[in-house]
Amino acid sequence: MSSTIDIVPESSNVIKGKAPLLGAPQRPGGWKKGLAIMDFILRLGAVAAALGAAATMATADQTLPFFTQYFQFEASYDSFTTFTFLVIGMALVGGYLVLSLPFSIVAIIRPHAAAPRLFLIILDSVFLVLATAGAASAASVVYLAHNGNQSSNWLAICNQYSDFCNQTSGAVVSAFIVVLIFMFLIVMSSLAIAKKH
Amino acid sequence: MSSTIDIVPESSNVIKGKAPLLGAPQRPGGWKKGLAIMDFILRLGAVAAALGAAATMATADQTLPFFTQYFQFEASYDSFTTFTFLVIGMALVGGYLVLSLPFSIVAIIRPHAAAPRLFLIILDSVFLVLATAGAASAASVVYLAHNGNQSSNWLAICNQYSDFCNQTSGAVVSAFIVVLIFMFLIVMSSLAIAKKH
Repeated sequence: MSSTIDIVPESSNVIKGKAPLLGAPQRPGGWKKGLAIMDFILRLGAVAAALGAAATMATADQTLPFFTQYFQFEASYDSFTTFTFLVIGMALVGGYLVLSLPFSIVAIIRPHAAAPRLFLIILDSVFLVLATAGAASAASVVYLAHNGNQSSNWLAICNQYSDFCNQTSGAVVSAFIVVLIFMFLIVMSSLAIAKKH
Repeated sequence: MSSTIDIVPESSNVIKGKAPLLGAPQRPGGWKKGLAIMDFILRLGAVAAALGAAATMATADQTLPFFTQYFQFEASYDSFTTFTFLVIGMALVGGYLVLSLPFSIVAIIRPHAAAPRLFLIILDSVFLVLATAGAASAASVVYLAHNGNQSSNWLAICNQYSDFCNQTSGAVVSAFIVVLIFMFLIVMSSLAIAKKH
């Protein structure tokens, strides 16, 4: 019920041969390529932040210089289930981010294709949840370690385990940076998908 | 450079008068309307889950029937910073979800418009992070309340505060349901944006 006569506009570019190299602002949709390149760079940053968070948390380990007859005071990441979750979660997120780099490269090469970006949006939002859950749950335990809680009679342990506390706090900050980058990635990909030009 | 002759196809539907009621599979893009309706229904469910989580957590309060000379044993949501965060976070998420319903209705009326869905994807991913952070941080404190932690000498309090523990656990489950619904909403909206027909 609809007939279209298209005088193909791309042919003129093919004849000139230079148009694709002239850069983003001149072609409609060139900003999509810019977004894809930024997506790739942000992903590299997120890989570093995720693996940094996992490594910082995994090496957090402190033994106090005094002990009783029955018990030696030691804190490491695997004495808190939440911190173990952060290490595993950040390792998974880092692995996913490395595996997602090829799809980001496909989006750079073919900036108008919706499929790779759609794929990235869906998986990004899944791993955004994993990263946020790890960061937030570790943050709440770090908060308890710093401040304690009166009604449950949990005492602050950061006076004793000061190195441990510093290292876990750093890992939490790094994990929240990963969360921020994921939010940028999702917003950028959905902008690129939604606009036609 | 492109000239289009459109013999408007909608006019025949208007004459027949019944075509829009025939259901999604017959028109190209009709599945987008179906997705928009599901989006609206899921949003209603998420409102209920978010406000339910906030209310359950806010009413969690237990006073133990024994006390010492100096201290009465009481636990309520505002004695744990994390639980206060869950209440505030879930109230904000519930408020956002109610305010997002009009945009979801716009997506039902104009299933091919990308703008309302793009707006919803971006705000949904922001509030997804808020909901996940609230749910995960409360979950880690609930876990500590159930199991305690040896290396920091935090004792499990759920033997004493059993009602309080049950109620906070229920609120955490409800908050995670909100997170799940948000993930469905983002996937559905990005599918609808990415496909042309």
